[in-house]
Amino acid sequence: MRKIKYSILSLLGLVMVFTSCNDSGKKSRGALASNNAEKVYVAPGEQDEFYAFMSGGYSGNLTVYGLPSGRMFKEIPVFSQFATNGYGYSEETKPMLNTSFGFVPWDDSHHPDISQTNGELDGRWIFINGNNTPRIARIDLKTFETAEIIEVPNSAGNHSSSFITENTEYVVAGTRFSVPVPQRDMPINEYKGNFKGALSFISVDPEDGEMDIKFQILMPGFNYDLSHPGRGKSHGWFFFTTYNTEEANSLLEVNASQNDKDFIAAINWKKIEEYVNNGGGTKIPANYAHNIYSDEDHTAVSTMKKEVLTVDPTKVPGAVYFLPTPKSPHGCDVDPTGSYIIGNGKLSADLTVHSFDKMLAAIEGKKFDGEAYGIPILKFEDVLAGTVKSGGLGPLHTEFDGEGNAYTTFFISSEVVMWKLGTWEVVDRKPTYYSVGHLMIPGGNSRKPFGKYVVAMNKITKDRYLPTGPELEHSAQLYDISGDKMELIYDFPTHGEPHYAAGIPAELIAPKSQKIYKLAENKHPRATLGVNDARVERDGNEVHVYMAMIRSHFTPDNIEGIKVGDKVYFHITNHEQDFDVPHGFAMIGANNSELLIMPGQTKTLVWEPKQVGVWPFYCTDFCSALHQEMQGYVRVSPTNSNVDLTWSLGE
Amino acid sequence: MRKIKYSILSLLGLVMVFTSCNDSGKKSRGALASNNAEKVYVAPGEQDEFYAFMSGGYSGNLTVYGLPSGRMFKEIPVFSQFATNGYGYSEETKPMLNTSFGFVPWDDSHHPDISQTNGELDGRWIFINGNNTPRIARIDLKTFETAEIIEVPNSAGNHSSSFITENTEYVVAGTRFSVPVPQRDMPINEYKGNFKGALSFISVDPEDGEMDIKFQILMPGFNYDLSHPGRGKSHGWFFFTTYNTEEANSLLEVNASQNDKDFIAAINWKKIEEYVNNGGGTKIPANYAHNIYSDEDHTAVSTMKKEVLTVDPTKVPGAVYFLPTPKSPHGCDVDPTGSYIIGNGKLSADLTVHSFDKMLAAIEGKKFDGEAYGIPILKFEDVLAGTVKSGGLGPLHTEFDGEGNAYTTFFISSEVVMWKLGTWEVVDRKPTYYSVGHLMIPGGNSRKPFGKYVVAMNKITKDRYLPTGPELEHSAQLYDISGDKMELIYDFPTHGEPHYAAGIPAELIAPKSQKIYKLAENKHPRATLGVNDARVERDGNEVHVYMAMIRSHFTPDNIEGIKVGDKVYFHITNHEQDFDVPHGFAMIGANNSELLIMPGQTKTLVWEPKQVGVWPFYCTDFCSALHQEMQGYVRVSPTNSNVDLTWSLGE
Repeated sequence: MRKIKYSILSLLGLVMVFTSCNDSGKKSRGALASNNAEKVYVAPGEQDEFYAFMSGGYSGNLTVYGLPSGRMFKEIPVFSQFATNGYGYSEETKPMLNTSFGFVPWDDSHHPDISQTNGELDGRWIFINGNNTPRIARIDLKTFETAEIIEVPNSAGNHSSSFITENTEYVVAGTRFSVPVPQRDMPINEYKGNFKGALSFISVDPEDGEMDIKFQILMPGFNYDLSHPGRGKSHGWFFFTTYNTEEANSLLEVNASQNDKDFIAAINWKKIEEYVNNGGGTKIPANYAHNIYSDEDHTAVSTMKKEVLTVDPTKVPGAVYFLPTPKSPHGCDVDPTGSYIIGNGKLSADLTVHSFDKMLAAIEGKKFDGEAYGIPILKFEDVLAGTVKSGGLGPLHTEFDGEGNAYTTFFISSEVVMWKLGTWEVVDRKPTYYSVGHLMIPGGNSRKPFGKYVVAMNKITKDRYLPTGPELEHSAQLYDISGDKMELIYDFPTHGEPHYAAGIPAELIAPKSQKIYKLAENKHPRATLGVNDARVERDGNEVHVYMAMIRSHFTPDNIEGIKVGDKVYFHITNHEQDFDVPHGFAMIGANNSELLIMPGQTKTLVWEPKQVGVWPFYCTDFCSALHQEMQGYVRVSPTNSNVDLTWSLGE
Repeated sequence: MRKIKYSILSLLGLVMVFTSCNDSGKKSRGALASNNAEKVYVAPGEQDEFYAFMSGGYSGNLTVYGLPSGRMFKEIPVFSQFATNGYGYSEETKPMLNTSFGFVPWDDSHHPDISQTNGELDGRWIFINGNNTPRIARIDLKTFETAEIIEVPNSAGNHSSSFITENTEYVVAGTRFSVPVPQRDMPINEYKGNFKGALSFISVDPEDGEMDIKFQILMPGFNYDLSHPGRGKSHGWFFFTTYNTEEANSLLEVNASQNDKDFIAAINWKKIEEYVNNGGGTKIPANYAHNIYSDEDHTAVSTMKKEVLTVDPTKVPGAVYFLPTPKSPHGCDVDPTGSYIIGNGKLSADLTVHSFDKMLAAIEGKKFDGEAYGIPILKFEDVLAGTVKSGGLGPLHTEFDGEGNAYTTFFISSEVVMWKLGTWEVVDRKPTYYSVGHLMIPGGNSRKPFGKYVVAMNKITKDRYLPTGPELEHSAQLYDISGDKMELIYDFPTHGEPHYAAGIPAELIAPKSQKIYKLAENKHPRATLGVNDARVERDGNEVHVYMAMIRSHFTPDNIEGIKVGDKVYFHITNHEQDFDVPHGFAMIGANNSELLIMPGQTKTLVWEPKQVGVWPFYCTDFCSALHQEMQGYVRVSPTNSNVDLTWSLGE
């Protein structure tokens, strides 16, 4: 690999000096503001035009917004415990957070991507990666609940994930931090040449969406930062940015910025799929969790998987190439036609655009510039389609409007730059407040973007909203891109730290949104489907309460015969069958969250009473005019008590 | 007590038949919509006029919104674990969730109230109650962080809380579910006459806000639903609604609705304060947690308190009276002058307004209508100021605009009704979508409301936003009340279930909002204040990592000599001193959340490595152009390894 010493000190300086600069919005409201007000206003009784699914970053979850209003409609718990509805606290959902490291109550969720058919959004599922303890989740867009989480072995810092191929054949998961594969006790400073970066291709069942790791490509020990699929003509390929091709293990902010160019890795996954379908690859022992939640029994099951199929990329000729790309490329974006691969060199002013056609020609013509660990490096000049002389600094991510324009965020210079595909000319630029990371156009990662709005997700908030002490939410900005130029029309705060987002027209999802769970189809093994089935059963020191709830009553509502030292399982079934009539359940002193139970659903809370007495429980969701009366009592007797197990059934 | 049989069946029917009725907003946008758009639009670069602090209900937290935009600026974790920033997961914050029941990771947060001086909002602190495992929290409005939580013993369903007196002398906490005091093993159906309802008066230190339970009044075993302080002429009194004066223990939705009238309890707390200051009351053994977080050492300490002073109200003549109030009153609201106490009989069509002056006269004239458990019942007719013939059904809560108008929510008929204090005439009514619970006018619970907006907090959402499966966020609606009539101008979703909210002009809080923690003032015992202090120390199988972080580096960033079976404490200090430059810390496979660490702050994460290997950690908050390089590795060796403890300091 060629190395060119490159001083990053000036750039580092610039990182520190972002400016809380001039803010043209601070004039008083004129005709323009009024126009913008109307553009983002969704009047009472009307609805938003687009869903925006924003990753929660360090919240570990996925949040659902409406555009253009910027209102947050739901936080979907994915990788993090969520006390609000009991996710990760109820017996049914705890298995969702199981991993090879045990129960992990948090993650750093990064890049959501909506399922596609023929390269267009189909709105069936949305995928998102857990960055820290490597996992990929699938969320069902009928129920807006996390349906599945699969752990990714041999991986660390699962960042270049979870993007999908154009028929949702695969969702990919790529290592950011290379590690020993398999893991072993070795000196950290022997990293170079010894660590590996696994790129995992996880198949998605076309019927039910179930995920399975089809193969892992064991790449050189670089950092794999982001990725995007080929589409159209480049369908069958996947592109990953790399940085730290220096393979430094310490002081990366200096040592990983030495090479003038890192790479975009071009993976011909169809070729590797064919290779493994023909028996290629090596199965190695592994240990990773596969957690599936079923709407039928309202319960998650975690299974540990014990091996994974690995592929040495040098064993599959023609499958993997490196495209030299300047300045530690971060984002790796593919235009709607699949012709161009844009590398956003984060320490650069310019964008590097590679041509898929030229790449194929260079491969065909063997125009190589050496190799890295046996993987051919294509000649930079032979794959380059063009360079966007942006005038900005610190490009990170690019999206597309489907009208031939691309939009790139610049973190250091705090702006979104709009430019033309093919001519590479800059046609507009607008400031962001402040230090933008990702951006999103609905459908922007597909063949068919809906180029009406772009959302900029900013990393610095400062004075954009009323202050809330030292800790602030991040800030998003909404631009109208329906005209020739971008127009900033709204600021709205976002929860956690959105890293990418996926937008989709509401009409593709809203009509299919599920309203209730049918009680008649509830297959929970401990459901109480009729009030007459309500009962309390003792099994040693385990007590199972089979409880029903309906406005405004628990059956049973008085229970006696519980003892200190018991482990009490409340299995509670919500008998409502109307939309938007959840009930909650809380027990005083439980070392647990509440349960929020949707119509037709069964959930279980464990309570270990520690003190003798008469203790109340109640409904936590104001459900009717008599909600305050929806309560009950449990009598807890001493461990050695002879109080009979009894309960009230409304007599 | 008089009992009048009262059929609630018709009302119960009505509860079920709320209508997803006509929605006048569904017409296309005209001039009026444009006008409303401008009213709620806060242009980029501008800021909202009011803070709205909304209780999170079953989220257990407190959310901060701006008005009129309806944007959520922060979720402040209070009673619930919050994986987003590590609250309840970090070593420093775990003690905040300690209780006499052990660690309780969730609660049901209900009624926020902002501190007052002379009956006006002073914006120093905001208090909120945990309903389930009875607690009161104090949040510091300089840092927007939870500063203190005190558990409330002898209490259950801590609902008629956490309202404050007009100089923040006390915050009150009232039992909703009466229980045996002290707790004991007894049959539930012996409730009547044996259970008690504790009303706790918690003193607030005028300098630092620290709370202490001054006394608990052991009232009859009714359900104490809501409360509000007297003010102005009625300062020194506190008013609590009761229901279930029937003292039913089962099927409350029927059995607690038998009495035609329940009571508002009028408590002369100044008289009781004098009584206990003179040695009155009885100290009884108790066990409750008092948790205080210090900004100096960034650490919470939990102390168990062992006794509490109780007061038998019958022993303090002239201190407690019952005001008969029809139909299971829910809300209990006092107008800005302190002259009127409004009881919202939730199974009624009318509002009952009591006169403070007439109450004093009735007490003076001994116009009693019997007693309940030794507490005098005042004659209804002698304390009644008037009745508001609302025409609505199911009144819950009332707020005031300071212009002589009151606004009452009606759950069953889904509307807000505006009426005149003194004449009791209805002057306007507007529908809510749907089934409104609480409402809020900034300063509405003070002498000086800011009557520009009213926010209705609705319990049912249904079709107000794009659907998100069976589980929906609740919905708030914003009305402009600056004119003669109410005008619905916006819908916005709210997180969890807001039960009440507290609004305040931004100018009373924003200028004092803290931006950073000063590193020089950091008193955390394990802080790493200089990079040269960074180190790793072993103490048996405990390992303490003293780590510093600054853009874009951890010191140390490579650590060796950790073994399987160790318990590793990462004590991490953020060396930034600029506003809005937090860093995060995540360790792969940790059975814990991340840490989100503000400038100048120290936080600690515990990690118990389970597997041999080389494992990465990284910064979870995109902090600079070289954020992706802000990472490190820990080498984990077998338990019996001899690998030396070493770490890198940037050499």
